Amino acid sequence: MLTRVKSAVAGFVGGIMTGGGSGAGGGGSSGSDLPLKFPYMRPEFLGLSPDEIECSADHVARPILILKETRRLPWATGYAEVINAGKSSLNEDQACCEVVVARRRPMSYCPPSTPSKTPTAKRRNSLPNGEGLGLRLEYNRMGEDSDGLVFHYWALFDGHAGSGAAVVASRLLQHHIACQLQAVIEILRNLHAVPPAVMGEEPDNSPHLQGNTAGPHRSLTRAASLHGAAGSPGSPSNTPPPPRLYTEKKIQHESLVIGAIENAFKEMDVQIEREKQIYNITGGCTALTVVYLLGKLYVGNAGDSRAIIIRNSEIIPMSAEFTPESERQRLQFLGYMQPHLLGNEFTHLEFPRRVQRKEVGKRMLYRDFTMSGWAYKTIEDQDLKFPLIYGEGKKARVLATIGVTRGLGDHDLKVHDSNIYIKPFLSCCPEHV
Amino acid sequence: MLTRVKSAVAGFVGGIMTGGGSGAGGGGSSGSDLPLKFPYMRPEFLGLSPDEIECSADHVARPILILKETRRLPWATGYAEVINAGKSSLNEDQACCEVVVARRRPMSYCPPSTPSKTPTAKRRNSLPNGEGLGLRLEYNRMGEDSDGLVFHYWALFDGHAGSGAAVVASRLLQHHIACQLQAVIEILRNLHAVPPAVMGEEPDNSPHLQGNTAGPHRSLTRAASLHGAAGSPGSPSNTPPPPRLYTEKKIQHESLVIGAIENAFKEMDVQIEREKQIYNITGGCTALTVVYLLGKLYVGNAGDSRAIIIRNSEIIPMSAEFTPESERQRLQFLGYMQPHLLGNEFTHLEFPRRVQRKEVGKRMLYRDFTMSGWAYKTIEDQDLKFPLIYGEGKKARVLATIGVTRGLGDHDLKVHDSNIYIKPFLSCCPEHV
Repeated sequence: MLTRVKSAVAGFVGGIMTGGGSGAGGGGSSGSDLPLKFPYMRPEFLGLSPDEIECSADHVARPILILKETRRLPWATGYAEVINAGKSSLNEDQACCEVVVARRRPMSYCPPSTPSKTPTAKRRNSLPNGEGLGLRLEYNRMGEDSDGLVFHYWALFDGHAGSGAAVVASRLLQHHIACQLQAVIEILRNLHAVPPAVMGEEPDNSPHLQGNTAGPHRSLTRAASLHGAAGSPGSPSNTPPPPRLYTEKKIQHESLVIGAIENAFKEMDVQIEREKQIYNITGGCTALTVVYLLGKLYVGNAGDSRAIIIRNSEIIPMSAEFTPESERQRLQFLGYMQPHLLGNEFTHLEFPRRVQRKEVGKRMLYRDFTMSGWAYKTIEDQDLKFPLIYGEGKKARVLATIGVTRGLGDHDLKVHDSNIYIKPFLSCCPEHV
Repeated sequence: MLTRVKSAVAGFVGGIMTGGGSGAGGGGSSGSDLPLKFPYMRPEFLGLSPDEIECSADHVARPILILKETRRLPWATGYAEVINAGKSSLNEDQACCEVVVARRRPMSYCPPSTPSKTPTAKRRNSLPNGEGLGLRLEYNRMGEDSDGLVFHYWALFDGHAGSGAAVVASRLLQHHIACQLQAVIEILRNLHAVPPAVMGEEPDNSPHLQGNTAGPHRSLTRAASLHGAAGSPGSPSNTPPPPRLYTEKKIQHESLVIGAIENAFKEMDVQIEREKQIYNITGGCTALTVVYLLGKLYVGNAGDSRAIIIRNSEIIPMSAEFTPESERQRLQFLGYMQPHLLGNEFTHLEFPRRVQRKEVGKRMLYRDFTMSGWAYKTIEDQDLKFPLIYGEGKKARVLATIGVTRGLGDHDLKVHDSNIYIKPFLSCCPEHV
């Protein structure tokens, strides 16, 4: 349980994308004839005038933008931004801070990826420390706020190769979260009951029928259960169901919130992919969200930004960055399992530097997906391919292109002058603290 | 750097295998006509007589076996064992504690997986706290000890479904480690030089030629390098090599030791698989090794045992257990990527309990490989398959069969009454502290 704390979300340097057309990015105008999904903007809570927005993009002065009123955002949230050092004409990063209501039982469950179609309205609202300035309270006119769940929401999107994905995500991700939460509002509001395995049914509280002793009979019981249990594909459907052989795993309420946020990230990414057909949504972005709901703080992170809390001058890290180095083994494993994703140009093995043809036959340091250490191997022709993960620290890249391994967007991103897509290696799934 | 500490390696309860014929296991006699690779034994350092070995297998008295002399093993190593509660006729666990010498440059590099063929000899040796009792110093008569690297070695093998794999691993894994270290002895002994990327060459200490600025040109440089660098498959082989465009990653000496231990585990597993053709090697085992080399302690763990250090009555965990729950996402990801491994009987999705046929169409809690939280999904026919990961805590199982997810052996283990192999889901790769 958190009391009032000073909170800040900081975008870290590093993980900057170098491939994929940073020249095209800035204002979201990549020469596409498609309309923008949302106009380019700076975070609404900054309350910038059009003139100020223009000044904010001055790559020489590089003004630091901060909140005009320190109590504009709840929880004494801090915010500061500055344009990057010439990489793109406009700042491709976005942020969002809102109080959101997930309403109980809308007409139906939100159809996947279409939360923006849910009828919503905005109003000014008085909030703790928010002083009613710039905060939007979203709710559905079909119901009362008291029927819903209110959550505080902070988010940061570090954009690259265009601002489109970051702008869209900063406008819509909170709605995806609200939409996922809508499906479980009644369960979340009933803190005294365990979430049921099957929605609408009572949780199973029957005693354990499964034996507690280990022994030869146990595996037979399991095998029999596996092959003959009601519902298993091979069993006759007219057999009466036997008593449950297994106990039910008890799921905590918090797990439902985490699951909702996780699936919201996925839905957001699917929506970007789908709507790229009809809108001009450039580039990709990391996504870092903080949700405060029912007395608990949930941090979801897909990318290399970091959430921190500052309490009594102490900095408490609330997330860890995903980078090509921190995710090396996941990416190498994927490349090993699905070598076609490497397009015959890359190898999933890591080497300390490029291998040269004259070195074939010599023994060189390498690292496979199972290894955290290094060993020597005899260099073969196939080791001359470019390593899937290459470079160190801020220069580490996946497929020689991108320095961040999780986020939204980037669906069209390819290795320069090739047909190798980057997206299969990028996860849109957040990890939670 | 560690000074003298009290060290202990403790096998944890849990992760007990229930499937795969525990009745066949005990003495390593599974009805096979093949000879044993090594006779069944208890750890040599216990110094048990044949009578004592027989008494140790008394499932009623369950005597606790400890060292006869507390200073028998170095570093005040503690040891205690007791037979399991009736699961197998003999204790399937094994342990080893030795001082090993990896010799510099044997005749050639150890051929893969055949370290036992290296000519070795044993002698009694006086060691710190070892008092020369029971400790074996292994070295190769071709060289002097001063040419080699001496390391302390502790290991624990928690066997299941037979004692064969645990016995073999307890006799041979240290030789695989020595063999892997042999390839890098000269590099490890030269602590003042960075390990070279290519063996026998000077490490690259040239200045960074790679640009430090991020920008549009950078990706072109990378792409040009990717497609045109010397040694890349498409480049003419008679082109003189251009200056290195990339700096060389500096690998620490410790990484070579870790890599050696990691590859030794793999070689040990390959040897068990190969020699099962000619020897009766039953079951599987976890493997937990501690290597003290050149002033540093390396803990490698593949399984659900735990290494601890006791210092000033404080217990310091030196490893973390791998279980179906801790490795759920890795296993689900594998099942998702390679669905044929699930044999149309299992689903990679996790549910809180078995799904019943009558529940098709209802919404049930589930968890996919990308999720740490839970959400509801509409149950479909394919969700009636048995979950790849099932059960909680000590009862958690992979493919309804095995409760541990890393280790050696188990190459023939299948799901009961099916042709679904467990081994692809079991990793023999240790993680290091």
